[in-house]
Amino acid sequence: MNLTDDTSMNITDEQSDERILMAHGGGGELMQRLIREHLVPPLASLANPLCNKAAELTDSAVVPWNAAEVVFTTDSFVVTPLEFPGGDIGRLAVCGTVNDIAVMGAAPVALSLALVLGEGLPVELLSRIMLSITRAADEAGVAIVTGDTKVIERHAGQPPALIINTAGIGRLLCAAPPDANRIRAGDRVIVNGFIADHGLAVMSAREGLKFETPLRSDAAPLNHLIARLADSGIDVRFMRDATRGGVAGVLADVCDATGLSVVIEESQTPVSQPARMAAEMLGLDPLTVANEGKVVIVISESDVMKALELLRTDPLGRNAACMGTITADRPALVELVTRTGGRRVMQRPYGESTPRIC
Amino acid sequence: MNLTDDTSMNITDEQSDERILMAHGGGGELMQRLIREHLVPPLASLANPLCNKAAELTDSAVVPWNAAEVVFTTDSFVVTPLEFPGGDIGRLAVCGTVNDIAVMGAAPVALSLALVLGEGLPVELLSRIMLSITRAADEAGVAIVTGDTKVIERHAGQPPALIINTAGIGRLLCAAPPDANRIRAGDRVIVNGFIADHGLAVMSAREGLKFETPLRSDAAPLNHLIARLADSGIDVRFMRDATRGGVAGVLADVCDATGLSVVIEESQTPVSQPARMAAEMLGLDPLTVANEGKVVIVISESDVMKALELLRTDPLGRNAACMGTITADRPALVELVTRTGGRRVMQRPYGESTPRIC
Repeated sequence: MNLTDDTSMNITDEQSDERILMAHGGGGELMQRLIREHLVPPLASLANPLCNKAAELTDSAVVPWNAAEVVFTTDSFVVTPLEFPGGDIGRLAVCGTVNDIAVMGAAPVALSLALVLGEGLPVELLSRIMLSITRAADEAGVAIVTGDTKVIERHAGQPPALIINTAGIGRLLCAAPPDANRIRAGDRVIVNGFIADHGLAVMSAREGLKFETPLRSDAAPLNHLIARLADSGIDVRFMRDATRGGVAGVLADVCDATGLSVVIEESQTPVSQPARMAAEMLGLDPLTVANEGKVVIVISESDVMKALELLRTDPLGRNAACMGTITADRPALVELVTRTGGRRVMQRPYGESTPRIC
Repeated sequence: MNLTDDTSMNITDEQSDERILMAHGGGGELMQRLIREHLVPPLASLANPLCNKAAELTDSAVVPWNAAEVVFTTDSFVVTPLEFPGGDIGRLAVCGTVNDIAVMGAAPVALSLALVLGEGLPVELLSRIMLSITRAADEAGVAIVTGDTKVIERHAGQPPALIINTAGIGRLLCAAPPDANRIRAGDRVIVNGFIADHGLAVMSAREGLKFETPLRSDAAPLNHLIARLADSGIDVRFMRDATRGGVAGVLADVCDATGLSVVIEESQTPVSQPARMAAEMLGLDPLTVANEGKVVIVISESDVMKALELLRTDPLGRNAACMGTITADRPALVELVTRTGGRRVMQRPYGESTPRIC
C-alpha cells in the first residue's frame, strides 16, 4: 500500500488480519492497547512540541495560549438506546465533555456539537434531544458555539441511530491543577455519590428489565461542584470522571501512572440498593460500570473531612464517601477489601461487559 | 414525553412524522432548514451571551479568551469509501478542520481526534489512516492533542465503517478577520484552483468509474496559503472553503448573508478536463460538487492581480482564477453566465446529489 512506509508501525503478518472488536470500545485492557500501540505513536511522532500531548492519555489537553491556557477535549457518544431513565444521549454528550474539562481543574467555557444522524431518525426525537442538550448546557453554564451535521445510511431493521461528538474548551482555574503525578502514598480516594447508576440504567432499559425502585442515569455536569471544591482551598491532587471502565478503571489508571497501589473498602463504596440488585441480575461489578455524574477525587488525608462536608451540601455530592487509600505497596494494583474482610485484586477489564453505554 | 415542555419548538402533528433523509446531510436547502428550524433555536435560546454564536452559522466560532481569541470549530467525516484516489477519510478530517479555522483568518494550533470505529474494521486499514492523519497534520503544522475512541456494531454485508470527528482551535491572525458583512458590490470572487476534483474522485471510486487521466481528491491543508495572503497585506473580505454544496453553495450563503448577488463566468471557472468529463458522466454540475482543498475568496477589484499572482506561486494555488463578481442586483441570487453568453440562475441544491462525500 503506497500510504504505508518505513515510518508505519511495523505491521506484521500476524497483525495484518486483526480487526476491531466491540470489546475495543470498552475502556478496558484491549482498548488501552489499541490506543497505545496504534493510535498514539503516529500522532506523537511529529516535531511540533504540542504533539507530545497526544501521549499523555488524559481526557483533555492543556494548550498554551498567551497568559491563559486552553483546556481542550473531545468525546463521541454512541449510547443505545438514545433515551433512558434519567437522561438521553444529548445530556450525556454535554455532561461528558463538561466533566472532562472540569476534572482538569478548569472551567468549561464553550462546546462544539457535531451530530451524525441516521437516516430515518424521527425529527421529533432529534428535537427532544436538542432540548435536553440545551438544558444540560444551561445547567453547566456553557455555550454551544459551533456545530456540524452529517447523515449516514441506516439499513432495514436497525434502530434509529444518532452519534454525537462534543468537543470543549475551558480555562484553568487553579495554579496547581490536578495531576496523577501529584498523588502520594497515604492520600485518600473520594467519590461524590452512588456509583454505577448510569451504566445500569442504560443496560436495564436495553434489556427491558424493571426494578421496583427505578434506576436512573446519574448524568450531570459536575463543573460547579468541582469549582466549589477548588474555591474552598482543598488541594485536589487528582480527579477523573469515572465513565467507561467505571471507578475501577480510573483507579487502574492511577496505579499505571503512579506506580502506587489503591486499597478500596467495599463497605465504604457507595452503591444504592437498586443498583446493587441490578448489578447482581446483570452479573456486573458496580466498580467497573460506567457513570456520567461521578468523579473520583484523590486528596490528602487531612482534607478528607472538609471535602466530604462540602460535597455533601451539594445535591450532586449528597452521598459522597471516602472509599479508598493510596498505598506504596508493590506491584501497583487496585485491591478490594470485601465486607467480610477478604482481599481481592481488581483486574482491569479486558474488553467491556456493557458496550455502548456512553 | 416528559422531556418536552412549553419551551420546545412547537412540534405540530404534521411535523411529528418527519424523519431524517440522506438528503438532510447534503449541504443544501433541506439541511439549512433542519439546522435553522430544529438545531440552532434551542442552542441560541440560553442567557449565556456566547450562545448567540450558535446562530451565526459560520463553520467556526470566535470565543473571547483574554487578549487572544480562540477560533473553535468541529467537523465529522462519514465519507465512503474510506480511501480514494488522492486521499482518505483521515486526510480529509485534518484538512477540513484546518481549513475551517484558516478561512476565519486564523492559524490552526491544535486538533482533537475522535474515532468511531465499526466492528470488523481491519486494524491495518486503521493504521494506514492514522499515518495519513499524521502526515496531513504535519503538512498543516498542527498538533493533535486529545482524542477519543468508540466502537459501534456493524451488521453483515456492510462495509467496514469509520467515522472521524476533528475539532480544532486556532488563533486569529488579522485585526479585521474575513466576514461576509465586509463584502461590497463590485468585489471579485477568486478560487484557488480546479474545482470539484474531491467529490468527483470519491464518486468515481465508489461507482468504479475509470478515466484515462485519473481524478484525485484535492484534499489539502490551506492554512499556509491563506496565511501568505494575509501576510501580503491583501484585505480578504470573506473566505470559505467550498466543501459540501461546492462553490455554488458558498456563493448562495454569501447572497443570503449580504443581500447581494454573485455573477459567475462559466468561462473563467477552473474545471480540469477529467473533472469536466466525470461530471458529465455522473450528471453533476462541478459548481455544486464538494472540494476539500479549495477556498472561495472575496476581495476588492484592486487586489485581484496581486492575489492571483501570489496564489499562483504556491502549488495549492497554481490554477487560481477570478471567476465572479459581487453585484447589487436584486433579488440576491447566484447567476451563471454560460460560455455561450446565456444567463442561468443557480439554485441552491435541495438535498444532495452526492451523499457522504466528506
